[in-house]
Amino acid sequence: MIHFKEIGKIMGALLVLIALLMLPGVIFSTYFDEDPWPILSSALITMVIGMTLFFSFSKQDQNIRKREGYLIVALSWIFMAGFGMLPYVLSREISGFSDALFETMSGLTTTGASILTDIEAMPKGLLFWRSMTQWIGGLGIIVLTVAIFPLLGIGGIELFVAESPGPTSDKVHPRISETAKRLWYVYVGLTVSATLLYWVGGMTFFDAINHALTTLATGGFSTKNASMAYYDSAFIQYVAIIFMFLAGTNFTVIYFGLIGKIKRVLKSDEFKTYGLTLLGVAVILYFPIAATGIDPELAFRKSLFQVVSIVTTTGYVTDDYTQYSEGFTFICFMLLFVGGCAGSTAGGIKFVRHLTFIKNSWLEFKRLVHPRAIVPLMINGDRVTGRIITHIMNFLLIYLLTFVLGSLALSLMGYDLATSLGAVATSLANVGPGIGKVGPVDNFAFFSPAAKIFLSVIMLLGRLELFTLLILFTPFFWRAN
Amino acid sequence: MIHFKEIGKIMGALLVLIALLMLPGVIFSTYFDEDPWPILSSALITMVIGMTLFFSFSKQDQNIRKREGYLIVALSWIFMAGFGMLPYVLSREISGFSDALFETMSGLTTTGASILTDIEAMPKGLLFWRSMTQWIGGLGIIVLTVAIFPLLGIGGIELFVAESPGPTSDKVHPRISETAKRLWYVYVGLTVSATLLYWVGGMTFFDAINHALTTLATGGFSTKNASMAYYDSAFIQYVAIIFMFLAGTNFTVIYFGLIGKIKRVLKSDEFKTYGLTLLGVAVILYFPIAATGIDPELAFRKSLFQVVSIVTTTGYVTDDYTQYSEGFTFICFMLLFVGGCAGSTAGGIKFVRHLTFIKNSWLEFKRLVHPRAIVPLMINGDRVTGRIITHIMNFLLIYLLTFVLGSLALSLMGYDLATSLGAVATSLANVGPGIGKVGPVDNFAFFSPAAKIFLSVIMLLGRLELFTLLILFTPFFWRAN
Repeated sequence: MIHFKEIGKIMGALLVLIALLMLPGVIFSTYFDEDPWPILSSALITMVIGMTLFFSFSKQDQNIRKREGYLIVALSWIFMAGFGMLPYVLSREISGFSDALFETMSGLTTTGASILTDIEAMPKGLLFWRSMTQWIGGLGIIVLTVAIFPLLGIGGIELFVAESPGPTSDKVHPRISETAKRLWYVYVGLTVSATLLYWVGGMTFFDAINHALTTLATGGFSTKNASMAYYDSAFIQYVAIIFMFLAGTNFTVIYFGLIGKIKRVLKSDEFKTYGLTLLGVAVILYFPIAATGIDPELAFRKSLFQVVSIVTTTGYVTDDYTQYSEGFTFICFMLLFVGGCAGSTAGGIKFVRHLTFIKNSWLEFKRLVHPRAIVPLMINGDRVTGRIITHIMNFLLIYLLTFVLGSLALSLMGYDLATSLGAVATSLANVGPGIGKVGPVDNFAFFSPAAKIFLSVIMLLGRLELFTLLILFTPFFWRAN
Repeated sequence: MIHFKEIGKIMGALLVLIALLMLPGVIFSTYFDEDPWPILSSALITMVIGMTLFFSFSKQDQNIRKREGYLIVALSWIFMAGFGMLPYVLSREISGFSDALFETMSGLTTTGASILTDIEAMPKGLLFWRSMTQWIGGLGIIVLTVAIFPLLGIGGIELFVAESPGPTSDKVHPRISETAKRLWYVYVGLTVSATLLYWVGGMTFFDAINHALTTLATGGFSTKNASMAYYDSAFIQYVAIIFMFLAGTNFTVIYFGLIGKIKRVLKSDEFKTYGLTLLGVAVILYFPIAATGIDPELAFRKSLFQVVSIVTTTGYVTDDYTQYSEGFTFICFMLLFVGGCAGSTAGGIKFVRHLTFIKNSWLEFKRLVHPRAIVPLMINGDRVTGRIITHIMNFLLIYLLTFVLGSLALSLMGYDLATSLGAVATSLANVGPGIGKVGPVDNFAFFSPAAKIFLSVIMLLGRLELFTLLILFTPFFWRAN
């Protein structure tokens, strides 16, 4: 039996929180002499429904079990999307249902793909809410990673994140709520730091806070049509690179770094691979960019910026990566399948899963030569069980299958091969830009309503690590006791 | 220590066999009043070198061990390709090294991609040798599957093929040599039957035997520029469909069918999935073809023909599948990743691996809900161990990684996205036609010599189930005792 009352109460609390997070948008609306009513009334509606839900259900003192956990996760994003689109709809700035859903889901999943053709024409209050949806999405992922995924055992990466049960976890502090608090401090602290640095670098305060919110969420929504290319300041772009990098790092690793436990930082195979990969690919892509004859520093910055932006699944743009060559575009397309670190706000496949696959592949050859030997796989100095290896490789295959079937569906809707592959890959990995007609300087406005709703579902699937959402469609979930 | 003498002796014997199989080409050359010398001298050179190798090494009475096994497999295809290209080179009909290597490797790996722009202009003797290379490749794969892969434990499918050790094997007869003989009878018997039926259907005897050789090998080389579209006879095309279907079936299953053990046939989950998938996809693709206004029977035949041709990795063409829509092309492209059954002459991923992945994915959801339950995976009524599941999923991921990195390499050589994806996917799966500039009505002549050599390597990698070739590049192989 599923405890729907508990779930209802939690959804109510969530809506109250969302309503409160809408209020800064009201303040910006007022400050910029815009009509504050669309956002204010959205907040009021959300608050009233949230309160009603919360107080309709008495506290049951039931522990949340696995099955409630799955439903809570899926319903949280669906409730947030449903109420989060109100400001767009009530202001009539984004009128169609599919457009409003797409923009909201792209925010809450920290994807950053947009159906807006002229971002700068939007009222500032709504732009702030748009950035806030990403920050909320990032916050949600941190909560999920620390508190919910270890309970559910989703995607096999819970063991590589702090505070998970099991021998391979790297404990920050004995209590989950305490860890969540520490990671929340890291998230807020980095957001404030990024705001100040963007501001110092020359952005207006409004632009600075918006970009800080969407940087730390690895979201990528910008208040400028040209995205980060609007700012030709090297300082601002390097600040973005550094904070995107941090946002894609396991927050536990950042916490260890901040309290000076550098050994613990270096113990993370994932973090080291992440850093070296970003640098390595940036060096490779430097050469074709430099070959266009631009300044070497600018060429390297462009290369590093886009590699970090794609791999951390942020999706800011300073350069059109599809302009160089087929091979260059192909590499950027492949980067969509990398993803950041587990325990960060980044989406996508994530380094620890790639590490597991690559290390295990290597060991498979050893096992062929020595069929009777026990050949363990070690990550972060701990042994990974066969059960987890199988689960992670199955995740990778389901991820790729979702990508292929999703692309097929889009191509059956009449879109060309590159556009279909690009739109689904970037939605599933929660990045933002793709290839084909959804390249870095394009937007998603031209898709049909059906395609927009479809891509919104793909974003949610990716953000919730596939299994969380898919399991709701299996008989095992509904039959279990 | 690797016993190179044993390997040398086996290579010698192999070359003698190849020389003997060149002789029918000499007969056809003579019959058609062509210059028989290029093929005859190729046969003589191969024979002399083969005899020299064979008699240089005294019999060691050593059992072949795993490590010799890997080398023998890889070297067999390399020796066969090296000597198999002699007739093309000596006749100067295919002059460049890369062209001759590509055409020979495409034959021996039963791929069927061709660099020939006018097949019908080639001397008949050479065309026969070209078809023969595919038949030899198919024969080689049967020997590998029955006698070598079970020893090596490659790709995880050895357990699903007859006569393998282990509890999941389905024994035809206690002795491997006896099984090999039975499967060889099936191969030869089906080839003779196909020849007679093609002949009865209206092909010349020469064309009938050529097409029979390349049908049973799931190779797809044709003696006609238009491939099977040359024959507008429904009879011939249905014969081709039936024999392609049989060539892509586990030969043990065919053997059981022939001796009337229908229960054993129906026990094969792979065979049932194979049959139903082919029919299902053919029905789906029927509608867009029928929508062009052609006769329903012809529309269904076209649909069934191309589905069977791609899935069995044969690659005959009766229709240009890229002419309908983006979605239709996408489906045909996806079919390149299916492959036939284990224990057939088909290449590609193969149904039993897909079955393992799909069944295990389903069970992963069950395992999430019931984390402490033991949830076994069953195929053909037998339990598949976790070790094998991991190995098969790792194979799938390495296959896809090879496809992606191979496509990247080709796109870096300057080819467009669709062509790169298509050429590598079809080479790796040993099919023949792809998408982009290597569609069903195109050929591979336009590729640079480097790209042709690269694709030849990809074909070999796919044909030898990746691990067999890749393991030679690991330290484990060379360090082992």
